[in-house]
Amino acid sequence: MAQVAVMSPDGSVKKIDRDSEEGLQALRKLSALMLKAALKQEFKGIRLGEAAADEDGFHVDSDKDDQQVSADELPALEDVIKGMAKNDAKVEFVEVAVDDALAEVKNDKFSTELINENAKAGKVAMYQLGDVKAVAKDDILVYGDVIKNLKLLSVAGAYWKGMSSNPMLQRIYGTVFYKKDDLAEDLKKRQEAKERDHRVIGNQLDLFFVDPKVGAGLPYWMPKGATIRRTIERYIIDREVADDYKHVYTPVLMNLDAYKTSGHWEHYRDDMFPPMDMGDGEMLELRPMNCPSHIQIYKHHIRSYRDLPLRIAELGMMHRYEKSGALSGLQRVREMTLNDGHTFVALDQIRTEFAKILKLIMSVYKDFDITDYSFRLSLRDPKNTKKYYANDEMWEKSQTLLKAAMDDLNLDYYEAEGEAAFYGPKLDIQTKTALGNDETMSTIQLDFMLPDRFGLTYVGKDGKEHMPVMIHRGVVGTMERFVAYLTEIYKGAFPTWLAPEQVHIIPVNEDAHGKYADELAKKMKAANIRVVVDHRNEKMGYKIREAQTQKVPYTLVVGDDEMKSNGVSVRKYGEQAQNEMSQDDFMDEILHDIATYSRKD
Amino acid sequence: MAQVAVMSPDGSVKKIDRDSEEGLQALRKLSALMLKAALKQEFKGIRLGEAAADEDGFHVDSDKDDQQVSADELPALEDVIKGMAKNDAKVEFVEVAVDDALAEVKNDKFSTELINENAKAGKVAMYQLGDVKAVAKDDILVYGDVIKNLKLLSVAGAYWKGMSSNPMLQRIYGTVFYKKDDLAEDLKKRQEAKERDHRVIGNQLDLFFVDPKVGAGLPYWMPKGATIRRTIERYIIDREVADDYKHVYTPVLMNLDAYKTSGHWEHYRDDMFPPMDMGDGEMLELRPMNCPSHIQIYKHHIRSYRDLPLRIAELGMMHRYEKSGALSGLQRVREMTLNDGHTFVALDQIRTEFAKILKLIMSVYKDFDITDYSFRLSLRDPKNTKKYYANDEMWEKSQTLLKAAMDDLNLDYYEAEGEAAFYGPKLDIQTKTALGNDETMSTIQLDFMLPDRFGLTYVGKDGKEHMPVMIHRGVVGTMERFVAYLTEIYKGAFPTWLAPEQVHIIPVNEDAHGKYADELAKKMKAANIRVVVDHRNEKMGYKIREAQTQKVPYTLVVGDDEMKSNGVSVRKYGEQAQNEMSQDDFMDEILHDIATYSRKD
Repeated sequence: MAQVAVMSPDGSVKKIDRDSEEGLQALRKLSALMLKAALKQEFKGIRLGEAAADEDGFHVDSDKDDQQVSADELPALEDVIKGMAKNDAKVEFVEVAVDDALAEVKNDKFSTELINENAKAGKVAMYQLGDVKAVAKDDILVYGDVIKNLKLLSVAGAYWKGMSSNPMLQRIYGTVFYKKDDLAEDLKKRQEAKERDHRVIGNQLDLFFVDPKVGAGLPYWMPKGATIRRTIERYIIDREVADDYKHVYTPVLMNLDAYKTSGHWEHYRDDMFPPMDMGDGEMLELRPMNCPSHIQIYKHHIRSYRDLPLRIAELGMMHRYEKSGALSGLQRVREMTLNDGHTFVALDQIRTEFAKILKLIMSVYKDFDITDYSFRLSLRDPKNTKKYYANDEMWEKSQTLLKAAMDDLNLDYYEAEGEAAFYGPKLDIQTKTALGNDETMSTIQLDFMLPDRFGLTYVGKDGKEHMPVMIHRGVVGTMERFVAYLTEIYKGAFPTWLAPEQVHIIPVNEDAHGKYADELAKKMKAANIRVVVDHRNEKMGYKIREAQTQKVPYTLVVGDDEMKSNGVSVRKYGEQAQNEMSQDDFMDEILHDIATYSRKD
Repeated sequence: MAQVAVMSPDGSVKKIDRDSEEGLQALRKLSALMLKAALKQEFKGIRLGEAAADEDGFHVDSDKDDQQVSADELPALEDVIKGMAKNDAKVEFVEVAVDDALAEVKNDKFSTELINENAKAGKVAMYQLGDVKAVAKDDILVYGDVIKNLKLLSVAGAYWKGMSSNPMLQRIYGTVFYKKDDLAEDLKKRQEAKERDHRVIGNQLDLFFVDPKVGAGLPYWMPKGATIRRTIERYIIDREVADDYKHVYTPVLMNLDAYKTSGHWEHYRDDMFPPMDMGDGEMLELRPMNCPSHIQIYKHHIRSYRDLPLRIAELGMMHRYEKSGALSGLQRVREMTLNDGHTFVALDQIRTEFAKILKLIMSVYKDFDITDYSFRLSLRDPKNTKKYYANDEMWEKSQTLLKAAMDDLNLDYYEAEGEAAFYGPKLDIQTKTALGNDETMSTIQLDFMLPDRFGLTYVGKDGKEHMPVMIHRGVVGTMERFVAYLTEIYKGAFPTWLAPEQVHIIPVNEDAHGKYADELAKKMKAANIRVVVDHRNEKMGYKIREAQTQKVPYTLVVGDDEMKSNGVSVRKYGEQAQNEMSQDDFMDEILHDIATYSRKD
């Protein structure tokens, strides 16, 4: 078992296992310090900020206004670091006067805080490498000679503390390993991640963009992205209407009082937008969730047991405040549209309704070819029931009912005690993202609290008033996150029914075959197929390649042969083969493809 | 020519033509004063506010907290007024000390202001009737004996000055005429208006509601109204996509800076919502229009002449501040979704593009059976061209082009010089509401200014940068106003393709025919027909009547005969006849009805 020497914050040196997590972190920490030293050496006068190991590698911040480091310069910086390594770079332990230490890290807020907290008798413990120093915190590798498998990955702009009013910094990211193979594997994984990154694909395919200058976390859906979204929206509404949901439209604004009643203003205020004073005593709030809106729909009529279950659904736009540093493409946004629904049920309808919702979710997953998911049943902590909304009978009954419903459906699930919401137990359906991370895609949550807070009732068979239970449920989540997810699992190659452009027709010769292509396209449009004829004055090979780059499911080439036979030459995305077929056969094929949600079966 | 005596604010009395507008207003003014006197007499201690003639009749405000007047009590109040009339009620002219006058009208802000403005030498001129007085303003009828044809119409709550933070008043409305026939005609017109009032129908058919407590001017679309809206939304998007529009989704929020650039913040601020401070230097604004959003879409790529015309469309949600007193049902709201579109064209494409848009609009009107409309071409004032965006060449060219386009299409239009927008000429398409009022339904507006302000360009054939012209166009306007309009022209009897419930099936006997009805419904649902089976334990006659009240296009009754013949008994809305037909024939009929937008032709 290979060992390496690491220095601890007290200056002592010990040997640890090289291949342990600690060994890797010590390596990353030294690499960050070496990058800092290399920057100082190569970019005279550059202001340097944080230099740190992180969970994926390491990074160093520097001031962008002063000295711009371009991606082209990263290989040269790598060479400088590797040169230091060959020259036996070694970390020394030093004790530095507080003022000198503060001067050393003056652009690094985190280190500045560390110094102010940890200075003893006017001195600060630091690790020194050549003429750069870092506050001694966590173990650092002592000898730089092992640094051979290091790669500087990228340089990105970042606002100081993630706030757009702060100056722009640049951050250089790197990755490092002891073994060559580990580096290769890591780079491959990063490449894979990049290829699936919905922001990268979204840009390549022109699906959406976000421009912090016009609004941080507020995506603009370009025509192609909008087509995907619209197709999903119509699909999910139609599925829900067929499943007896009543779709509604409710305002994105509501009197702040409603969020005081619901408890959101008290517990959730940090995630909400600032209220607007309408000047006549009314304070309006952009809603952070749709539940209070659907409660208004419920309350608009006197309800009886005959109305239950009452299923209210909406593509509900909501606004949630997220720090601008946390925003990311369509994945983390401030304005989102949720495939939301609330079912109001009597207690004895929970089991059936829960099963009905679950069946809908699984059926929808099938249409989107989502197969990798698991069920987490989140229950109340039996040892600490006081943490939860107080109604023992409801908790006991409903938890038993949910388990029974899962068993009815023969579904495997794991129980997570203590993971229930304050207001009731829930089922989370966890999917795997393209990069293997767990993500909650769908959720079914029982809620005993809101019906109570808003005084919801229905008249029972007995003629008396009863309180309904509310079930919050989301099938595909927000349009934003769902499209980000689909983009990653499909790698941008959307199945035909979702593809913004389904057919790309290329005439071999514009003069000879352009008209035939147009007639073909007209026929397809009449059948609601999304088709484009490529009339541009470009080479055929270029057009075919571009259709592949744009991941169009079907590329048709039409020339003399096709005109003669009234046919088409078809190339499916990702396949090399060109198939000759009649127009009618092609229409049958693509319409079947669309109608079956492009399923292989 | 019958004449009546009226008193002027200076106390003089003259004769005027009874049947003139002035004669009617003098009658209304006296009627208001008589109602005030009647209220004072009948409701001891009631606080009385404004008593005035208005353009439809007259009204009197009183304080609701003190004394509640119910609609049931209006006939008795009418009798009191008519009793006064018989007893020779007569107006006297009096001069009153300011303090006494102010005490008399203390709950009437308007009169209070009048007194403060018009008091001379500590005295105020007033009209006195028995023990009530009104500030002398405008002529008033002197003798009450002609008041026979008077009707108190309604009593409604209203906020003082329309602001919800002010106390609630009650306002009693009345109408009055010299002749019996005029009253009868007026009441008939009011009844007609009430029958068509989208707020009344919206309530009867459960289409939508607005609750000022949760948000003034923010409608909630109930399931039935939402179905109508969704059908319209899908229809108009499909029409536009077929017409080569690119539909997008853009955020409802934008950095305030964009509205400073566009000029909205400078000129339109009063109609905008208060901006939100996001705490990191960003001020966000709920958008009052979608143009700046679509400009972002345009600017996201470098555009060439090959991209033009570029047609960007969206069902764009917007927020506009209207005084709460001006809000009305779906007609005047604060949150609205506009069927919006912006076409970016080269100058020489204006004529063709304008004609294309106009054809789309007229074709859409046909599908909604909108036939009563006219064209108003709003041009720049040739005598005052300085009032407008300065580009003479563009104005001259484009105005000529628009006229030529109208002539190409052989359309009649009237020119309205001086009615153009600041930024360009426009065509307004004026429809008649159910009550005969003019309303702008659609608009096509050229805009030379915003492309300039936002620095929009495209690369021309000559390789140089040119500025595009922007065409703002709306086909059916906002979803809110369009549904209000349709509700009124259809009197709530929506054509089958729009009807929220298209078929209502009533089994003669639940046990014997309920299952047959369900099977029939299942078959229809599979064909996307919106059908409900009425399983309620109610009499058949009641169910049929209710289906008529709910204006369901097709009511089917199924009993033994229908089961035997595998048929249905069909009753169309508004018709008495019941037609027996086979299931297949009925399916053919209704599907044809839907596919042809329920057109009679």
